[in-house]
Amino acid sequence: MNYRMIFKSLGSVLCVEAACMVPSLLISFIYWQGDTVAFLVSIILLTFLGLGLCSIKPVTSDIYARDGFAIVALGWLLVSIFGALPFLISGAIPSVMDALFESASAFSTTGASILREVEGLPKGILFWRSSAHWMGGMGVLILIIAVLPSVKANTFYIMKAETPGPVPEKFVPKVGQTAKILYIIYIAMTVMEVIFLLAGGMSLYDSLIHAFGTASTGGFSNRNASIGAYNSIYIDAVITIFMLLFGVNFTVYYALLKFNVKSILQDEELKFYIGTVIVATILIVLNTYGTIFQTIGEAIRYSSFQVSSIITTTGFSTADFALWPIFSQCILVFLMFLGASAGSTGGGLKCLRIILLFKIIKREIMKIIHPRSVQTVKINGRVVDEEILSGVMAYFFAYIAIFASATIVVSLDNKDMISTATAVASCLSNIGPGLGAVGPTGNYADFSDISKAVLSLCMIIGRLEIYPILLLFTPTFWKRVNI
Amino acid sequence: MNYRMIFKSLGSVLCVEAACMVPSLLISFIYWQGDTVAFLVSIILLTFLGLGLCSIKPVTSDIYARDGFAIVALGWLLVSIFGALPFLISGAIPSVMDALFESASAFSTTGASILREVEGLPKGILFWRSSAHWMGGMGVLILIIAVLPSVKANTFYIMKAETPGPVPEKFVPKVGQTAKILYIIYIAMTVMEVIFLLAGGMSLYDSLIHAFGTASTGGFSNRNASIGAYNSIYIDAVITIFMLLFGVNFTVYYALLKFNVKSILQDEELKFYIGTVIVATILIVLNTYGTIFQTIGEAIRYSSFQVSSIITTTGFSTADFALWPIFSQCILVFLMFLGASAGSTGGGLKCLRIILLFKIIKREIMKIIHPRSVQTVKINGRVVDEEILSGVMAYFFAYIAIFASATIVVSLDNKDMISTATAVASCLSNIGPGLGAVGPTGNYADFSDISKAVLSLCMIIGRLEIYPILLLFTPTFWKRVNI
Repeated sequence: MNYRMIFKSLGSVLCVEAACMVPSLLISFIYWQGDTVAFLVSIILLTFLGLGLCSIKPVTSDIYARDGFAIVALGWLLVSIFGALPFLISGAIPSVMDALFESASAFSTTGASILREVEGLPKGILFWRSSAHWMGGMGVLILIIAVLPSVKANTFYIMKAETPGPVPEKFVPKVGQTAKILYIIYIAMTVMEVIFLLAGGMSLYDSLIHAFGTASTGGFSNRNASIGAYNSIYIDAVITIFMLLFGVNFTVYYALLKFNVKSILQDEELKFYIGTVIVATILIVLNTYGTIFQTIGEAIRYSSFQVSSIITTTGFSTADFALWPIFSQCILVFLMFLGASAGSTGGGLKCLRIILLFKIIKREIMKIIHPRSVQTVKINGRVVDEEILSGVMAYFFAYIAIFASATIVVSLDNKDMISTATAVASCLSNIGPGLGAVGPTGNYADFSDISKAVLSLCMIIGRLEIYPILLLFTPTFWKRVNI
Repeated sequence: MNYRMIFKSLGSVLCVEAACMVPSLLISFIYWQGDTVAFLVSIILLTFLGLGLCSIKPVTSDIYARDGFAIVALGWLLVSIFGALPFLISGAIPSVMDALFESASAFSTTGASILREVEGLPKGILFWRSSAHWMGGMGVLILIIAVLPSVKANTFYIMKAETPGPVPEKFVPKVGQTAKILYIIYIAMTVMEVIFLLAGGMSLYDSLIHAFGTASTGGFSNRNASIGAYNSIYIDAVITIFMLLFGVNFTVYYALLKFNVKSILQDEELKFYIGTVIVATILIVLNTYGTIFQTIGEAIRYSSFQVSSIITTTGFSTADFALWPIFSQCILVFLMFLGASAGSTGGGLKCLRIILLFKIIKREIMKIIHPRSVQTVKINGRVVDEEILSGVMAYFFAYIAIFASATIVVSLDNKDMISTATAVASCLSNIGPGLGAVGPTGNYADFSDISKAVLSLCMIIGRLEIYPILLLFTPTFWKRVNI
């Protein structure tokens, strides 16, 4: 392990976090609701610590997979811990565990909250929650790779550890360049959404909050009733569309910029993703029309919003889907696990993995029918390496195993099983709301501190796709091989 | 496909079913409760059809994997369908779907019932349900392989398709001999349990019913309150121990017969299985003592019984665990998916698969730490083939995918989500009771016919470990390659 390089990188992570806190400081200054000092103190502390760590001189700047995973895992834990400072210092969230939960939820783009109501909080604090979403959506370290050309080391491993999906794709040979392109697309689409929301009569502040929540597929709102508070078909439509757009693999947008329309039309994950949204919406419309919704228009409006919100793992809500028929709820729970596309800002298992898993099952069947023939699994016309297939299958088990273990721990709170299980699923897939007590009108306030800690860990585990955090708990991971 | 050989084999399956109905006929004759004619008609019909199919002259007796899977899948479907005849003809279960459900539940050793109360039914009918359990436990086709030396074809494929677990083991080179040994152990242990139950004051009839239910890990009882009706510590203890014994891989008993103690002590699955039972029991004792049970003795008695009943997928009950704290219920749900050992009569995912899956995850972590080293997965000191590992991982996904799909269909009944999901899990893992409406005091009567059909299919899918039934729905499976 290159410990010096790890510490140095963690230093830049803290500096970036300090820089990302500046807009919240300015907002707290403008509205002057008593949270300015909290941001000032946090920024000074972060800068001091960050610059201190950055001054470490590494023997070599070479890093390998292990170092990349360590930087990402520790970086995310640190960012979440320090991100809780403004909540604590301002007194907005007095409990340490609650502040950590809210911060982990913000950075992991989960959007689960322990706050019973948010409208009374200082605007700077709410802006910080949503800024953290936005940072977490594309990745803190990818931002560093994009903006700091000084990191000349093999940053591919960092990118691999921070980007969701089984196959990390580089658009261009240089990792730094790829990171830049990703952030440019991310910023451009966020700005576009802000403009559309402003056009719908939303204030600039609210537009920024909700654009950050959409872009990162996070889901924090500054309104207690989430997007439902605006009760506007136009805003529902804009947010539905942008949620879906941010759930698409960003390679699709890069292909679009390159006018590579053919590769987009052939993208199997994109087809599966859009197909799932359409089928799930139709099923829920059929199930809720006449029972929950009186007009077909209403049914389509609320169903499509909720399907998009859950599959992209955003977690905004315009209706209390915990009151919908069980069939609709089951479909939403299914979408909670499925999640958005690989290489998007969304969480969950990712469509690409599920497509590959179904193809693997098809191959297992073909193996029985034709035992002597060699069968390969292809995606978008290309053969997928057996190593990657094996990784995808192992990932699926790891995901379910973590879900099961966390559910058993959280069940010690003796809440009903649906609230318990969907709380874990929702945190692990970075959604936010679940069903029952943690449904769209509920929150996570009533869980014990142990459960809140487990759920916070689930959020970061889900965001980083398990292995970086699992590695931290592996003793051999820490064995010194090289300086 | 060797269609002639398939039909011929199905013929012997029906003949075996007719033969297995004879004891029930005798019982119906002794008690004379109006069900004798039902058995007579069923036996005549089965014999007539069976002998007819048996008279087919195959061009060659060679069969391959495909044929083996087809024989097992169709054989089980046929046996379940014809097994419903006595229920229907006697009028004990007037609805066709209900009779099919009860029959599939009996043969698949699930023990889920649509009957609201069983004590009023004719003794012959109840004996038939339990005989079907006993036949289904070790396998109808393995019985044929054991008793019909005329089947000289490559019966290994049939055994492979009918035996649970990722690695079908032959004790001796000859498949027929292995099948014989399996049935001898099965019969000997069943007789032993009958003797122990008789010693506890149970009647011969009740002893047979419950020994059949234990041996097959089925769980049908002739008492409404299941084993709880006897309210005897001795009977609880005998059944707890025998349930656990039948959840052990039968290779362990073969090793015991050969005095190969070393291989038993080194068996990783056995250790995992016993360890899980002990840990789960301790956790539930700690969770229920003082809340549900007032003495530690009571807590141990009921917890150990229920843990054994669920992990072995038997489904007997002595307490209404649907009223236990959520933590205890979550552990039981976890055990529902886990299941017993491979090569036992129990269902579920099987301990062996879960051990292998955890070892695969450990390997994934090691791959990140040491990217250049080649890592193998070992069980009981032997390296496991990559093909088998890949199959185990694919199986896990297939299991969860079938669980999710079936849950979505059954949720159309709009029962609460816990009842819906645990009904599917319980049927797929061949347990019987679930939670909520299908808890130990409930039953499956209130589900719609569509749900009952889906649940029945889940039972057979679970018993045959998915692929034989999936193959039936694969068009290319039916393509004629060779006669």
